[in-house]
Amino acid sequence: MPHRTTFIAGDENMSDFKRIYADNAATTQCSVAAIRAMTPYFYESYGNPSSLHSYGQEAANALAQAREIIAQAIGGQPQEVFFTASGTESDNQAIISAARFGARKNKRHIISSAIEHHAVLHTLDALEKEGWEITLLPVDEYGLITPEQVKNAIREDTALVSVMLANNEIGTIQPIGEIAAICRESGVICHTDAVQAMGHIPVNAADLGIDMLSLSGHKIHGPKGAGVLWCRRGIPLTSIIHGGAQERGKRAGTENIPAIVGTAVALEEAVTHCDSNASFVRELRDLLIDGLSEIPASRLNGHPTKRLPGNTSFCFEGVEGESMLLLLDQNGICASSGSACTSGSLEPSHVLLALGLPHEIAHGSLRLSLSADNTREEIDHIIKVLPPIIQRLRDMSPLWRK
Amino acid sequence: MPHRTTFIAGDENMSDFKRIYADNAATTQCSVAAIRAMTPYFYESYGNPSSLHSYGQEAANALAQAREIIAQAIGGQPQEVFFTASGTESDNQAIISAARFGARKNKRHIISSAIEHHAVLHTLDALEKEGWEITLLPVDEYGLITPEQVKNAIREDTALVSVMLANNEIGTIQPIGEIAAICRESGVICHTDAVQAMGHIPVNAADLGIDMLSLSGHKIHGPKGAGVLWCRRGIPLTSIIHGGAQERGKRAGTENIPAIVGTAVALEEAVTHCDSNASFVRELRDLLIDGLSEIPASRLNGHPTKRLPGNTSFCFEGVEGESMLLLLDQNGICASSGSACTSGSLEPSHVLLALGLPHEIAHGSLRLSLSADNTREEIDHIIKVLPPIIQRLRDMSPLWRK
Repeated sequence: MPHRTTFIAGDENMSDFKRIYADNAATTQCSVAAIRAMTPYFYESYGNPSSLHSYGQEAANALAQAREIIAQAIGGQPQEVFFTASGTESDNQAIISAARFGARKNKRHIISSAIEHHAVLHTLDALEKEGWEITLLPVDEYGLITPEQVKNAIREDTALVSVMLANNEIGTIQPIGEIAAICRESGVICHTDAVQAMGHIPVNAADLGIDMLSLSGHKIHGPKGAGVLWCRRGIPLTSIIHGGAQERGKRAGTENIPAIVGTAVALEEAVTHCDSNASFVRELRDLLIDGLSEIPASRLNGHPTKRLPGNTSFCFEGVEGESMLLLLDQNGICASSGSACTSGSLEPSHVLLALGLPHEIAHGSLRLSLSADNTREEIDHIIKVLPPIIQRLRDMSPLWRK
Repeated sequence: MPHRTTFIAGDENMSDFKRIYADNAATTQCSVAAIRAMTPYFYESYGNPSSLHSYGQEAANALAQAREIIAQAIGGQPQEVFFTASGTESDNQAIISAARFGARKNKRHIISSAIEHHAVLHTLDALEKEGWEITLLPVDEYGLITPEQVKNAIREDTALVSVMLANNEIGTIQPIGEIAAICRESGVICHTDAVQAMGHIPVNAADLGIDMLSLSGHKIHGPKGAGVLWCRRGIPLTSIIHGGAQERGKRAGTENIPAIVGTAVALEEAVTHCDSNASFVRELRDLLIDGLSEIPASRLNGHPTKRLPGNTSFCFEGVEGESMLLLLDQNGICASSGSACTSGSLEPSHVLLALGLPHEIAHGSLRLSLSADNTREEIDHIIKVLPPIIQRLRDMSPLWRK
């Protein structure tokens, strides 16, 4: 397997330290199969897929094969698969494209939810500045929106409904199939950010009846650097990066062949083993939820059953999330307070606030996101280590009712 | 070294076939040092650099180290280095940012050249549709623009001058230092697309006096999937991809740590060995130019001396470029007609047309772009193989005056 070079000094002392990685919603370890598949495209078949010669054609073949694998995994056609550099870019392009398409018919209204990823919310902010009207549906205490909410929010001028399949912080799974059916009745495009769901629960674009779907390689044990935008035929994409004619003129820039190949292999693996992985991970998750629920003044965030197999999200009263993470890290447990993309921010999570949690409780959040590489021993260790950490932080906290 | 997996069937029969790769302007083989440096970030230190735990901090340290290496190679500061997914994305963001910054002062005019990469030209097209005025300076027969042209084109409302450092098709090197000095006098931002130049000729942002610079990892023996936008302090970047707060809020999406690390190592290698590589490659190039100049009715494209060390670009009358490439490929020689990004298009290159070449001659173009991995024997082989191919195509051509 890969051998550490000296590029980064100073972390060699970590290598013998047993660590528990419980932050799989932030990113995942690249699978051995994905690494093996992508490796030849750095050194052997390194061509540019736009080149006519044999090196180029090897790369073009890899690209075509990856597109087929991914189309099959999504439940779509290869020509509906567009590669980007990230799930974020896919979300951006999906929303911008649906907006521009809608504008042709004077539709300038978009519906989404209050708990979307910032890749969606901030793209909607940009459209709002252009004069678009944005309706962000509130969620219930579990983070759910209902198909009825969508139905009631749809207007004559609604161009797009964008609702995530599963939430990155609290793991709640939305009723996307029902939402898509309502969109279809009303002639509204339905996009779903499936970055957290794909590969973890069954996702099939045809069965769901959606129009656009975003996913990311590095959330499913593929490499960083490749996102996918699946877009049903008939919905024209708008380029958000201009230049060469890659991706049928819809996304300029030399295709990242290794990352695309790695993503295809990882997605195929994830979909193939989805059921067995999910049932194993769900078991670990439930053990973890049961264990952490015994901590006094704790609260499980997200829906009790309609949640991602690997997601555990808690709030602990009287605890500051960042301090909890640092103490967990000292104990070899790698977790998150919420989204990695907003860590470093002092604001509590918009997702937790949307559930109705007060600021001081939302600040004490902990996400443990599991994968099939986690073990029961690791869960036992977390359940053992966390309570005294919380106790210690509460002892120090002026907020905690002693 | 990397071991071929079975992901792509059908090209194993190529593996023992001796091939000459002469398309280094399209993409390059990833260097062994770059591959070694990036490898740990797939499987060992795979964290998300936004995560607070140790995996995240290893990734964050790698990101910071890569930023420092790249800043030093460019001649700037780490906080001026922004990572994107490609040179194309860097060009897009540089131009959009300078445009938005200019618009605040009611500047709505941009100057560029007729031979820029499509990443620049198509971004300018998008701005033109928004109402921007774009001046594309014509080039002389060698593909050069003069500082005087820039000086004469600058207006009160000019926000940006974007001129590439060296052209991807014909290799001509522009007088960017002098152009930047004129921009500075006039208070106009100067951006240069250095994707083809960086690592191949000395490039130092401070010495050149430029404000923004784009580069790409995979053109300098780094991996695909990482671009760099260097932007002088004081010029605010505009996000073109919205979402998380990565890259100080200027470019959303989880950072592609392996590709960024690989790019840093490759750039450091390229800059360290720039002089010796350039003098070796220049020698090969001049042998090739001398050899191909002996073919009747041939024309060297680009400047005879102000050209990239590795660039050879010819037009052969009465020859159709794509057929020439296919026959060369059959002989194990991997070359290009011009830009890989526009291959597959039936239009002749906008760069060759800008030199004043007629369509029928521009169609017969061949670019052989060399690297320090090429050998004298390979050059001899190309010089031997190409003339009979051209003769054969001319014999078949109705255009050729027999």
